[in-house]
Amino acid sequence: MVMRKVNIKDVAARANVHPSTVSRVMNPETRSMVSTSVADRITAIANEMGYARSPLASGLRTGKSFTIGVIIPDLSNPVFPPVVRGIERTLAGDGYIAILADSDNSQKSEQAIYESMTSRRIDGLILATAHFDDPIVNECVQEQLPVVLVNRTTDAHNVTEVANNDELGIQLAVSHLKGLGHKQIAFLGGPENTSTGRDRLRAFKSANNPDPDLCFSCDAFTEEAGLAGMRTILDLNKPFTALVAANDLLALGCYDALNERGLKCPEDISVTGFNDMPFVDRLSPPLTSLHIPHDELGVLAANLLLEEIRDPDAEHKTIRLDPELVVRQSTAALSES
Amino acid sequence: MVMRKVNIKDVAARANVHPSTVSRVMNPETRSMVSTSVADRITAIANEMGYARSPLASGLRTGKSFTIGVIIPDLSNPVFPPVVRGIERTLAGDGYIAILADSDNSQKSEQAIYESMTSRRIDGLILATAHFDDPIVNECVQEQLPVVLVNRTTDAHNVTEVANNDELGIQLAVSHLKGLGHKQIAFLGGPENTSTGRDRLRAFKSANNPDPDLCFSCDAFTEEAGLAGMRTILDLNKPFTALVAANDLLALGCYDALNERGLKCPEDISVTGFNDMPFVDRLSPPLTSLHIPHDELGVLAANLLLEEIRDPDAEHKTIRLDPELVVRQSTAALSES
Repeated sequence: MVMRKVNIKDVAARANVHPSTVSRVMNPETRSMVSTSVADRITAIANEMGYARSPLASGLRTGKSFTIGVIIPDLSNPVFPPVVRGIERTLAGDGYIAILADSDNSQKSEQAIYESMTSRRIDGLILATAHFDDPIVNECVQEQLPVVLVNRTTDAHNVTEVANNDELGIQLAVSHLKGLGHKQIAFLGGPENTSTGRDRLRAFKSANNPDPDLCFSCDAFTEEAGLAGMRTILDLNKPFTALVAANDLLALGCYDALNERGLKCPEDISVTGFNDMPFVDRLSPPLTSLHIPHDELGVLAANLLLEEIRDPDAEHKTIRLDPELVVRQSTAALSES
Repeated sequence: MVMRKVNIKDVAARANVHPSTVSRVMNPETRSMVSTSVADRITAIANEMGYARSPLASGLRTGKSFTIGVIIPDLSNPVFPPVVRGIERTLAGDGYIAILADSDNSQKSEQAIYESMTSRRIDGLILATAHFDDPIVNECVQEQLPVVLVNRTTDAHNVTEVANNDELGIQLAVSHLKGLGHKQIAFLGGPENTSTGRDRLRAFKSANNPDPDLCFSCDAFTEEAGLAGMRTILDLNKPFTALVAANDLLALGCYDALNERGLKCPEDISVTGFNDMPFVDRLSPPLTSLHIPHDELGVLAANLLLEEIRDPDAEHKTIRLDPELVVRQSTAALSES
């Protein structure tokens, strides 16, 4: 059964008022122009008839599209779906909808997506793809388009950002491994032109004073890049008994490289990940990782963006969520062999 | 560095023509109104200057938004990110962008999302959430909005649909288990108001002639629902040595229920999944499942939708992709005990 949607004229006819009166009552910004008793009567009738004010229809007058752009680097990284769900749920509560795009880790795609989104008039942007000096962020600042960075940040720190406390996370991983007796610890990092790549590497170096050869930065946060990076480290034939991976997908690539060489995790090499993405508790072996509340990351990002849209002069905020170490079977005490 | 985008006036100034001439040349439908030599000269200048015609700008005249709505039931089900990536990549190739929304398996949310999308003028819709008698599909048909169903179908079969060959998939799983010597096989199904829930159950019954008590339909395709369903089956205390789950998330719920009861997979119960979603090859034990080319599912859906947008009178198509059984360690020969 298809029912025609109740529109403003239907409500006006039932209330015996002009449609523009209904319109004023339905818009919080103009409600005070109508007497309280009339406003209450019209609201009751509208509710009874199931009339829902279209945010877009009011947007035609206010110049707002009630549409938010969301750009993420890789939707097949299980970290991002919970972030996106948190964003969508929060935006929907305020009548906003998300245009989501996956840039496949390509800066060129990001630029094309950004242009495609802005040509459709978005009211704001949530970016999970930031680079240190990010042309898209610069453009948003210049065009005064509200923007919130999630997960990754820029060096300018001139827009609102919601990210993890990367330094604390890496410290927790290194302390855990040292507590298990490991002394030679390798590091498999992400791209050094992202904050998550660079900051986790820095944190590892300051927590561990490692052999520089045992620190390798991969060119993407993917399983394939992790496999290639781990092969490179293993090819050095330098001794190490544990490895900190800068995210869980890189850790999965490590698992594959260890398998190839007939090495066992954790018996030969202990491995830690970062993100505690869905399903890592079910892996063989279950991965020790740093838990981030990804849904909360999305909710926070969306709420902060909505704040900036409401008040363009609001101060930019910098939020860091503290990760928690979740110990599973991929890390074990150094054996006395 | 932020560069201003080249616009139609810049090209007109360089070519020393009126902007409306550039506009005519840039629009394939009006190019013939301009002499070939002028058109070629303007095209060359536009290319040299990096001018890109905005699909949306031309949409303002043609009434098109170059925006497609995509509704999926659960973005945290790893099946969907590859479908979405296939859709987005294909749409982008034609200048379209996707508005993606996650309905969290709720028909009420789907209706709200649909209304929110149509109020923003979408040119078409890709639905992964279809129910047998789906009010959204009915509304699209009535409003003549091009729609393509992906993964799930309706009973009316009056719109284009791209789905798996569910019957073949279940037959392959049952044959595999019978070939391993299993005779008592249970079935953990999905919601019976979805085609994937009902058709996989039907296929199981016709391939296996099972004890009806050993067939349980869960109320969602999630790990939690799979855990609850498997507990229900185990509580019957009826003998069975293998189980066919209607998707991989349900199979993960089975793993959890078996763990709770101290049962081992595959030693005590062999388990098969459906979808071969990312990471199931890394589970403990790696899951035997039915492989679906999910990226291809998305590419096909997007291409068929674009066809219908170009030619609203095109015939509706029904596409079924044949799944392939991928045997891993969650299934084993029945032991002679």
